[in-house]
Amino acid sequence: MGVTSLPDSLLKTGLKRIQGEVDAAFDALLPVPADSRARLVEAMRYAAIGGGKRVRPLLLTATADLYGVDREAAVRAGCAIEAIHVYSLIHDDLPCMDDDDLRHGKPTLHKQFDEATAVLAGDSLHALAFEILSSTDISADPFIRSELIATLAIASGKDGMAGGQMMDMESGAEDYDLHTITRLQQLKTGALLAASVEMGAILGRVPQEGRGHLRAYARDIGLAFQIADDLLDVEGDADKAGKALRKDEGQGKQTFVALMGVEPAREQARALVEQAVGHLASHGSEADLLRALARYIVERDR
Amino acid sequence: MGVTSLPDSLLKTGLKRIQGEVDAAFDALLPVPADSRARLVEAMRYAAIGGGKRVRPLLLTATADLYGVDREAAVRAGCAIEAIHVYSLIHDDLPCMDDDDLRHGKPTLHKQFDEATAVLAGDSLHALAFEILSSTDISADPFIRSELIATLAIASGKDGMAGGQMMDMESGAEDYDLHTITRLQQLKTGALLAASVEMGAILGRVPQEGRGHLRAYARDIGLAFQIADDLLDVEGDADKAGKALRKDEGQGKQTFVALMGVEPAREQARALVEQAVGHLASHGSEADLLRALARYIVERDR
Repeated sequence: MGVTSLPDSLLKTGLKRIQGEVDAAFDALLPVPADSRARLVEAMRYAAIGGGKRVRPLLLTATADLYGVDREAAVRAGCAIEAIHVYSLIHDDLPCMDDDDLRHGKPTLHKQFDEATAVLAGDSLHALAFEILSSTDISADPFIRSELIATLAIASGKDGMAGGQMMDMESGAEDYDLHTITRLQQLKTGALLAASVEMGAILGRVPQEGRGHLRAYARDIGLAFQIADDLLDVEGDADKAGKALRKDEGQGKQTFVALMGVEPAREQARALVEQAVGHLASHGSEADLLRALARYIVERDR
Repeated sequence: MGVTSLPDSLLKTGLKRIQGEVDAAFDALLPVPADSRARLVEAMRYAAIGGGKRVRPLLLTATADLYGVDREAAVRAGCAIEAIHVYSLIHDDLPCMDDDDLRHGKPTLHKQFDEATAVLAGDSLHALAFEILSSTDISADPFIRSELIATLAIASGKDGMAGGQMMDMESGAEDYDLHTITRLQQLKTGALLAASVEMGAILGRVPQEGRGHLRAYARDIGLAFQIADDLLDVEGDADKAGKALRKDEGQGKQTFVALMGVEPAREQARALVEQAVGHLASHGSEADLLRALARYIVERDR
C-alpha cells in the first residue's frame, strides 16, 4: 500500500482525538492542591496541558489499537511518555541549556514562572511518568507494568534521550560524521519514539520476537522525524512552529541537512517513510493510522 | 530497650559497609561509554560515588535485614533511592535554586562541570533509579518491582520530595506555622526517608497491614532528622558538614529551631527518637541497627 493513498482525515481525526484525551487525562492527574504546592502543580499543568502535537501518545495508542488494548490504559501510558517528553522540553528550554523563550507559541515555563519552578516542575513530571506506569490503572498485570517502566526508563536516561542530548551538547566541540549524527539522533529523539511503539506492543502483549517489524517501523520514522526537524529548522516558519528556528546553524551544529544538503535529506526522509510503511505489510487497514502518521512526520509544517 | 545502650560500633560498621556497597554498585551501574556521552556518565559518577552518608540505603537495607532479604537486591534498591536523593541535591545546588558551591566537601556538580551537564546528570540519575527498580536483579517478582516503583515515584514527586521543595521555596513569601513546617518537612525530607523503610518492607514481603510500626518509626525519625538538620544549620561546623551553613536565617526561612528555640527543638528531636525506637519493640536484637540509626540521626555532626 502506497503512502499517498492514505486519507488525511484519518490522521486529523486521530491527532484531534488523542490531543483531547491526553489533555483530559493530565487534567485528572494534576488537581491543584490547596497548599503552597499549588504553584508547582500549576506549572506542571501549564507545560503538560494544551500544547504539543502528542505524536508519542498517538504512536503508542495507534500501536496498541492493533492489538485491541483497552483505550483508557493506552492513553494513560501515552501520558507517561508525554510527561517524559514535556519534562525534557522544560529542562532543554532553560537558560543554561538552549535558553528558549517560546514553546508551543507561548512563553517557556521558566519565563512564565521562574527557573527554580521550571527545574522542579520538570522533575515532578519525570516522577509522574513512573507513578502513572506503576499504577494498576495501566494494567492489572505487574509484569506489564514493570516492562513498560523498564522500557521508558532506559529510553529516557543516559542510554537514551539524555545521552543523546549530551552528545548534541558536545557536537559544537567535536566534528561528527553522518554515522555519529545518526547515532546521536537515534538516542536523542529516536529512543522515545521507539519506546512509544514498544509500549503499545507491550500493552498488546506482543512477545519480544513478534515486535521486530514494529521496531523497524519505529527506527525508520524516528530518523525521518529528525531529518524533517532539521529541514524545518532551515526552511520552516517560526510562527507556525511556535518556537525559535535557524538555531542549529547559529550554534555551529552538525545536522543531517548540513551534511547531506537539503534535497538529498528530503529524499532520504521520504525513502525512510516508504520503508517504515513497508514494515507494516503484515497488517491490514487497522494499521492505516500508523501509515498516515509516518507520512505526517515528514510532511508536517511544525 | 533504651537508645543509649546501643553500641556505636554497630552503626559505624553498618555505615561503612553500606557506603562501600553503594559505591561498588554505582561503579558497576555507570560504566563510562566510549562516545561523547562520557562527560554525562562521568558527571553522574562524580555525584553518585564516594560522597554522602548513605542514610537512605542504610535504612532500606537495615529494614530488609529484619526479613532476610537477599543483600544484593536490597543494596540495589538502596542505590535507586540514593540516585533520587543525589539527583535532588544536584538540582537543589543549581544557581537558580540554592546556588551552592560545595557539597560533601567538594565543588558542586555545576561548578565542577557546568550547569547544563548538572541538569542532565540529575535527570539521568532520576531515570536510573527507575531503571534499577524495573530490573529483575531487584526481584524476580514483577509485583514487588512495581510496588517499589510506585512507592519511590510518589515519594519523590509533587506529593513528596519535589512538593516539599516547592513549599520550602514559597516559605520566604508565606508565614508558616509549626503545623505547616511539619507538613513541609514530612514531604521534603520525610517522604524519601519513609520510602526507604517502606521499600525494605516491600522487599521483605511484609503485607501493608504489617508495616504500621515501621511507618511510625520512619515518620518519627524523619521529623527528628529535619530538626537535627536545622540545629546543624545554626550550630554546626561548615568544614565537617562539607557544605554552606547558616543559610535558613539568611533566606528568612521559617524552621523548627526558629519557631521553637534551640533547646526545645533539641528536646523534641530526642523525644522523637525515643518514640521511634519504641515502635520497634516487637523486634529483637535484629533491629539494633535501626535503633542505632535513629540515635545517630540526632547526634550526628554533619
